[in-house]
Amino acid sequence: MPTIKAINHVAVVVEDMDASLSFWRDALGIELHEMRDVPAEQSRVAFLPLAGAEVELVMPTTEDSGIAKYLAKRGPGMHHICLEVDDIEGMLAQLRAKNIRLINEEPRTGADGRKYAFVHPQASGGVLVELYQL
Amino acid sequence: MPTIKAINHVAVVVEDMDASLSFWRDALGIELHEMRDVPAEQSRVAFLPLAGAEVELVMPTTEDSGIAKYLAKRGPGMHHICLEVDDIEGMLAQLRAKNIRLINEEPRTGADGRKYAFVHPQASGGVLVELYQL
Repeated sequence: MPTIKAINHVAVVVEDMDASLSFWRDALGIELHEMRDVPAEQSRVAFLPLAGAEVELVMPTTEDSGIAKYLAKRGPGMHHICLEVDDIEGMLAQLRAKNIRLINEEPRTGADGRKYAFVHPQASGGVLVELYQL
Repeated sequence: MPTIKAINHVAVVVEDMDASLSFWRDALGIELHEMRDVPAEQSRVAFLPLAGAEVELVMPTTEDSGIAKYLAKRGPGMHHICLEVDDIEGMLAQLRAKNIRLINEEPRTGADGRKYAFVHPQASGGVLVELYQL
């Protein structure tokens, strides 16, 4: 039985990284661990780890990516919740068996080797959920 | 120095609690720890704890509450992120000193004695942030 183990991160889509960091890092005092461009995602990502979970700020770096379109359509704000799972293939099979609509039918593999897949927000009451296997 | 210690939960506003539980509990397999009406918030809340953080499903139980208006205006989806802090008064003072707009200038106290306060989403790039002291 695949098991959700923890909330891994909450993602926030931002228009202006510096302005966002002035809140998350400078005002709240959360340490900025790393910021990097992720060309595969056409984004810049700031990582602010916290115990058990972290906040990620994702800024589009092109104008025609999925994240840019999301931002243009909905404005900045909460974007998705990422849940760490111990067996992503098993979880996707379980979701398919329950007729849960998926964005990724099979896990994708990130540049760092981790596997991930997105559940369609239609299935979750409007929340974009990422499943993530370390 | 007040310190953000962890992400405590991610809140999701839902239109139909049963439909939402069929995703979070039944499809993903996260245990439903508790569901209760919170009259002070004019809401029903389902608690699904996870390591380090939890998902909360919040359904309005009246039509004129803040949460109902949010739902009517924006539809279901991500609502706020709650950050556990060790010194909420100190953090609010720190935020005020940085001209961060707050919804609650002073901490409010829940029925269970915990202190909480909301930061205005204007200050955080559209994310409603709750600060929470256990």
